[in-house]
Amino acid sequence: MGPLDIHKLLQGKYRITTPLEVTEDNLKYLYTPGVAEVALECAKNPENCFIYARRKHTIAVVSDGSAVLGLGNVGPYGALPVMEGKAMLFKEFGNLDAFPICLGTQNVEEIVNIVKALEPSFGGINLEDISAPRCFEILNRLDNEMTIPVFHDDQQGTAVVVVAGLLNALKLAGKRISDVKIVVNGIGAAGYNIVKLLLEFGAKNIFACDIDGLLNEKTSLHKYHLEIARLTNPSNISATLRECLKEADVFIGVSKGNILTGEDIKQMAVKPIIFALANPTPEIAPEVAYENGAFIVATGRSDYPNQVNNLLAFPGIMRAAVEKQRKITLLTLMKAAEIISKTIEPERNMILPKATDRRLHESLYYTLLESFE
Amino acid sequence: MGPLDIHKLLQGKYRITTPLEVTEDNLKYLYTPGVAEVALECAKNPENCFIYARRKHTIAVVSDGSAVLGLGNVGPYGALPVMEGKAMLFKEFGNLDAFPICLGTQNVEEIVNIVKALEPSFGGINLEDISAPRCFEILNRLDNEMTIPVFHDDQQGTAVVVVAGLLNALKLAGKRISDVKIVVNGIGAAGYNIVKLLLEFGAKNIFACDIDGLLNEKTSLHKYHLEIARLTNPSNISATLRECLKEADVFIGVSKGNILTGEDIKQMAVKPIIFALANPTPEIAPEVAYENGAFIVATGRSDYPNQVNNLLAFPGIMRAAVEKQRKITLLTLMKAAEIISKTIEPERNMILPKATDRRLHESLYYTLLESFE
Repeated sequence: MGPLDIHKLLQGKYRITTPLEVTEDNLKYLYTPGVAEVALECAKNPENCFIYARRKHTIAVVSDGSAVLGLGNVGPYGALPVMEGKAMLFKEFGNLDAFPICLGTQNVEEIVNIVKALEPSFGGINLEDISAPRCFEILNRLDNEMTIPVFHDDQQGTAVVVVAGLLNALKLAGKRISDVKIVVNGIGAAGYNIVKLLLEFGAKNIFACDIDGLLNEKTSLHKYHLEIARLTNPSNISATLRECLKEADVFIGVSKGNILTGEDIKQMAVKPIIFALANPTPEIAPEVAYENGAFIVATGRSDYPNQVNNLLAFPGIMRAAVEKQRKITLLTLMKAAEIISKTIEPERNMILPKATDRRLHESLYYTLLESFE
Repeated sequence: MGPLDIHKLLQGKYRITTPLEVTEDNLKYLYTPGVAEVALECAKNPENCFIYARRKHTIAVVSDGSAVLGLGNVGPYGALPVMEGKAMLFKEFGNLDAFPICLGTQNVEEIVNIVKALEPSFGGINLEDISAPRCFEILNRLDNEMTIPVFHDDQQGTAVVVVAGLLNALKLAGKRISDVKIVVNGIGAAGYNIVKLLLEFGAKNIFACDIDGLLNEKTSLHKYHLEIARLTNPSNISATLRECLKEADVFIGVSKGNILTGEDIKQMAVKPIIFALANPTPEIAPEVAYENGAFIVATGRSDYPNQVNNLLAFPGIMRAAVEKQRKITLLTLMKAAEIISKTIEPERNMILPKATDRRLHESLYYTLLESFE
């Protein structure tokens, strides 16, 4: 059976159930007339929806289908089975009731207004597969204008797992984050947040590249690129990706397949660390990177060691944030990256824990929860 | 334990679950990379979301909290426990995965745009507890502008159950719908649709009253009143509710408590049928109505015989309409009323089946389904 057969058999990857069987007897408490008393309590104070209704456990997984997986803009119908899958993962690993919402609009203003209007039903919002740079404005605005936590996994979740893996890789290489030269290629949803999080962790030598090479005042395509250029390239120099890689300790690619060669790896510093995260084809095949001196290679694929998998981060982060109704800040992301990195004793072939390890998810949730106290 | 304790214990009246446990093995089919194939199929044709995703079983229960139960405009937070309860009933009696959506806006245009944008995730929309006359425009527009079935239970569901009960009451009284004089008091969400459905069933002598008496060009408060006035009162006469009741065979109140007296009942025709549906206080207490000659009395309350309960209609109607993706028309409502009325051999104390009778719901669903072929 292939994925289509399995999906046809399942008829969707969630079920909405009721916590108890409805009888003539309990109906008058669960619905009219008894529920009127509950409605009045909730109307008095929205906080009561976290006690008497299911807000504390419920999140929306929201997409407009503009950047689904590596498929591009497949629209909200194409996004639906993916958002169902994401909702399934939130339940399985984060014990959250997650409901997929695929929106029939790709207008930023409309998306912001719709998601804001959904607030009364949810305890948190997980944005998903929304294209850059639109996703930056959508996340910023929702985070500012809503009271519940808002998370964009492709931005923040990816950054957390990349940095968690990098912390362990640097440990194995015997290098410090404040000393190393890091090249990040592809300043989209993930790359933008990876750079921000690396800076927060004390990285001082970041080279942020996009389609036209090193980001500077001229190569920046929009204001979010410009922000990164000013943070990482204040002298406004120009360089190609290839030039930036010279003596670099770390390459983080969230860009396109097959853009690096063995020669690129050879000109990097000793013990080079390669995160080739383009999916399904990495920026360089791990075999080629290792043949040319790579110390550690990570990819986004499950069929190689060192998979960088968002699943490591989003269930625990959202579960803790929704339960405590805390905004997700850079500090939250830093803590999450540290917690994930410390759950294992890393080896070159295992810089990150297994994403399906339920103890990892419990540990991330509980430790973050404590940090919110 | 009261309703508050029970709701606190339950922490919400739905759960979102997954149809199977996620393992490292099945993850690659349910999520990446396998789901990409499914996403492309769904992007190709939205119909495929009914096969490979959960649209065929999923509806939204949407409210803006503007007319919740008898409580009035308690807003979206007050509406949440009620919509959760409604979702629970859809699941229990209609086997539909229903998700409560309470909107943080009461602007008609915004509500229409938001609900339209939610279409890709759902197979149907159940509107709930939205105040009249706003609800008429919202239902009409969504019904016209969306491809999935849209239902407003307070309008259409109530009309179906009232008419189903009335068909049986008339049978017991030995009267025909085309012959009787019917007074409907309160031309709001329910009353408007009751009149329309009665006309469709061949009623010829309907007196539609609202706050200023019989609806005519002058007493109509908005265009929906005017529509009813023109349909039922073409000669544009004026009369008080009391005057209309003279020699009436049927009174249907969807208005306010305690507005009728025993004297009002006495001036009606022989074997008068009284539907006193205001909740929690009926237009006249059943005891008083019977003492003054009522033949059959129905209320909205569960502690009297002949409860007119929407639960009889909405699960089966929506289940059939969503499964077959058929719009809900006046013809659908007529069929539903007929099916419900025929599921029992009526008696004066039992003109409608029990709302928690699961066979009734199965029967309504299957019979409607056949009628859609």
